[in-house]
Amino acid sequence: MNTFPMKLVTIICEALAREHLTRVLTEEGAQGYTMFSVQGTGAKGSRVADIEEFGNIQIEVIVPALVAERLLERLQRDFLPHFAVIVYETEVRVLRPDKF
Amino acid sequence: MNTFPMKLVTIICEALAREHLTRVLTEEGAQGYTMFSVQGTGAKGSRVADIEEFGNIQIEVIVPALVAERLLERLQRDFLPHFAVIVYETEVRVLRPDKF
Amino acid sequence: MNTFPMKLVTIICEALAREHLTRVLTEEGAQGYTMFSVQGTGAKGSRVADIEEFGNIQIEVIVPALVAERLLERLQRDFLPHFAVIVYETEVRVLRPDKF
Repeated sequence: MNTFPMKLVTIICEALAREHLTRVLTEEGAQGYTMFSVQGTGAKGSRVADIEEFGNIQIEVIVPALVAERLLERLQRDFLPHFAVIVYETEVRVLRPDKF
Repeated sequence: MNTFPMKLVTIICEALAREHLTRVLTEEGAQGYTMFSVQGTGAKGSRVADIEEFGNIQIEVIVPALVAERLLERLQRDFLPHFAVIVYETEVRVLRPDKF
Repeated sequence: MNTFPMKLVTIICEALAREHLTRVLTEEGAQGYTMFSVQGTGAKGSRVADIEEFGNIQIEVIVPALVAERLLERLQRDFLPHFAVIVYETEVRVLRPDKF
């Protein structure tokens, strides 16, 4: 079975950042993403109150390594200073590399 | 701590494919799976209208490497030609290998 | 782009175990986690009835390797004998290692 190496970039952030974030994903070359609501607490202590009111979202996007590199740089520069955001990448192998 | 290598196979597809897909998972030897609803856009452009009406689902299944191989072949043959589906695998390490 | 290796520990369990589990995460040194509802079936056969009534949750937590080791030992000892729980870890690379 042929599978192809890609990066899965996961972003967890306030739902408020959603529109800004998905625009960045598109600008940096992501071909698609999935998004779902999560509850959580973060390093700054319990955010139960925030979560109740705003909710957090988890966005997952699969991209080639070069796009991941560019995307992480952009997130580091534009998002990390302003939002309570978690960003991480995972090695994955996909079917149909033409989709990414 | 003893952990055991397995494959996490993730499938993102239209909710319509759900029943067909879970039957295939069972037939190919998966012992269980989790499923949750996601929003998203894909390589064919914005699918906002589709998502509103049908929704997408993300299915995650942990299997031994040999089962993953068989499952990916089956998905490649039976699903990729007919559904807007994303399939990828990730290396994970589990507690309790007897569960998979 | 500097990224830093961490462990993503994923726990899938009955929603009933939620409070107990998040207390353990905190005690073992996790700085935060995300949680969302999932449907699923497990190795003991279809749990459709259970799921309808109780629901399952998926908890994801990113921690340094040493914390992951400790957390997995604790889960193995305290949870696996009592709950229908799946635990696995994945290698990830994060931005902002100070958050974990």
